[in-house]
Amino acid sequence: MSIAMLFPKGLRQFLAFMFASLLFFVLAIATIAPVSAAESDPLPSWNEGEVKGEIIAFVDRITTQDNPDFVPVEQRIATFDNDGTLWPEQPLIQGMFVRDRLAEQVANDPSLAEKQPYKAVLEGDLSRLGRLTGSEVTALLTAVYTDTDGGKYEADVRDFFATEKHPILGVPYTELAYQPMVELLDYLRANGFQTWICSGGGIDFIRVISQQMYGIPPQQVIGTSIAKAFIEQDGTFVLQRQPKIGSFNDKAVKPVNIDLHIGRRPVFAAGNVKSGGDIAMLTYSQGRAGASFQLLINHDDRSGEFAYQEPDNASLNAAATHGWTVVSIQDNWQQVFAFQDKSKS
Amino acid sequence: MSIAMLFPKGLRQFLAFMFASLLFFVLAIATIAPVSAAESDPLPSWNEGEVKGEIIAFVDRITTQDNPDFVPVEQRIATFDNDGTLWPEQPLIQGMFVRDRLAEQVANDPSLAEKQPYKAVLEGDLSRLGRLTGSEVTALLTAVYTDTDGGKYEADVRDFFATEKHPILGVPYTELAYQPMVELLDYLRANGFQTWICSGGGIDFIRVISQQMYGIPPQQVIGTSIAKAFIEQDGTFVLQRQPKIGSFNDKAVKPVNIDLHIGRRPVFAAGNVKSGGDIAMLTYSQGRAGASFQLLINHDDRSGEFAYQEPDNASLNAAATHGWTVVSIQDNWQQVFAFQDKSKS
Repeated sequence: MSIAMLFPKGLRQFLAFMFASLLFFVLAIATIAPVSAAESDPLPSWNEGEVKGEIIAFVDRITTQDNPDFVPVEQRIATFDNDGTLWPEQPLIQGMFVRDRLAEQVANDPSLAEKQPYKAVLEGDLSRLGRLTGSEVTALLTAVYTDTDGGKYEADVRDFFATEKHPILGVPYTELAYQPMVELLDYLRANGFQTWICSGGGIDFIRVISQQMYGIPPQQVIGTSIAKAFIEQDGTFVLQRQPKIGSFNDKAVKPVNIDLHIGRRPVFAAGNVKSGGDIAMLTYSQGRAGASFQLLINHDDRSGEFAYQEPDNASLNAAATHGWTVVSIQDNWQQVFAFQDKSKS
Repeated sequence: MSIAMLFPKGLRQFLAFMFASLLFFVLAIATIAPVSAAESDPLPSWNEGEVKGEIIAFVDRITTQDNPDFVPVEQRIATFDNDGTLWPEQPLIQGMFVRDRLAEQVANDPSLAEKQPYKAVLEGDLSRLGRLTGSEVTALLTAVYTDTDGGKYEADVRDFFATEKHPILGVPYTELAYQPMVELLDYLRANGFQTWICSGGGIDFIRVISQQMYGIPPQQVIGTSIAKAFIEQDGTFVLQRQPKIGSFNDKAVKPVNIDLHIGRRPVFAAGNVKSGGDIAMLTYSQGRAGASFQLLINHDDRSGEFAYQEPDNASLNAAATHGWTVVSIQDNWQQVFAFQDKSKS
């Protein structure tokens, strides 16, 4: 008599059922899981090659428990610049929104139309808008919506995204997320990362579309902010926008605001070539104790996007010095936008 | 011949195994789940009664899809004050940390010991420390760690929590989370809420223990901040603490910083009676479009905690006017700290 015979027949059959089905599920999972992982490419819009390989190898390393570079999940923070990193910056999309608002103001006060930077904005001088200085952006940001409840601002931004189109590409701005970067955000999140935007653009502007376009909720957006005051207005309390910048989130201010909002150095940071605006953020990421990855996008594309370089090459020089991974849009991306055909040519 | 006979015997047996075990699991889950839900009290340290009932009824309402008060999960933001709401503020725990650091400074410069508020801090004048003004807190916050890399500060805070004990309760500060509030945080998270701290205390101080004590990660802590600068120091870039407050997160500044960090009005907000510091945050929460809940803790306990009131009663008056839920520690909490016996008396 075997040990099994010690159990009544009904129980034996029941245990046999349970064991057989458990075995089946274990075998099924063991067989299926590796196949599906090998078959699905997490970054289909990236060309095969060194850059894509480096990204995947890094994520594999920091998510493998017994690897010396392993990073606990709660430390997996990724920060992304927005303009030129997640969507185009020719022209600055927020600049187009401000232009619409200024046009409304000029309808009331025509003398405004002759002042700079208003003039460039209103005339749609894209080349001038591409070279806005920090103080000009500040002037523009505070020129509209001062002393207004934030609700009015948000409603107008929603309306802008629902109705306006990119002047050259001819599609709504909400279709202009860089498809390879959307895939990268998804890939990082699938590997335990919390993804953040850290942009020189306006925090309230980006928050309106960050979830829809990038899967990033408003509380994970860091950006340039307008000072606000909590005041009583017609019997209710509102957050009123003040005629003052709270924080201009560019260059060396990016690490300061990442510390304020997140409290950790990013494991993964991505920026782009144009003004050197992301050098400090990438330096900050690289300075963390433990593994980290820095990505710098070079706008060298001559077909699907807009080719431009940085006057002093500071970002590319920093990348070469510090070993950051440079993305060539021309060579490394198979496709720039989701609405384009897979083959760019 | 039954339909089953159309299949070979081996397959029939296998399907029988699968079906039997599937049925077993379905029945098991169907039997067990309602029982465990009915039996488990999400707020065991709260006495049965109106306050506990209101909290549970609110959460039921906003999580029920076809209820008019339903709140989509991405909007379920809860903000909690810290001192006096999640842990005791007699004395201010951060005040005790600063006292230790000042004692080190006085060892180098004895003249400091005669200046206020240093004097009160160094003499451990608990009553005086309980009445620190905003500008005194500012002076204390900037008196230590100016021009220091944040890493040194964090290490000292960790050491403080690992070694120091509450002067009256005699246990480490990390054991002083209010047990009913820890349960409330867990309960809200289990119902899809993202829980945040919004405190007048220092953001860098609270972040060291927020995960361990409250299950709140550093990026969900809002607090008073020191200005920082990203600068090169001995060949590496560090975030250096500046002799200036970035933001003093109290009263009307709390809604401004909630907007900056989260970008949404909280559905649930909790503060406490002492200085009126949370009135603005609770007002802000109540002003959201849609359902919301405001909780105000009244320190009327005469056994397990510290009884104190607000000089002008502004917080309790606001609660009465606006219909906020007032928690009496004496009446509504069965237990204040986890280390205490279940029955307080």
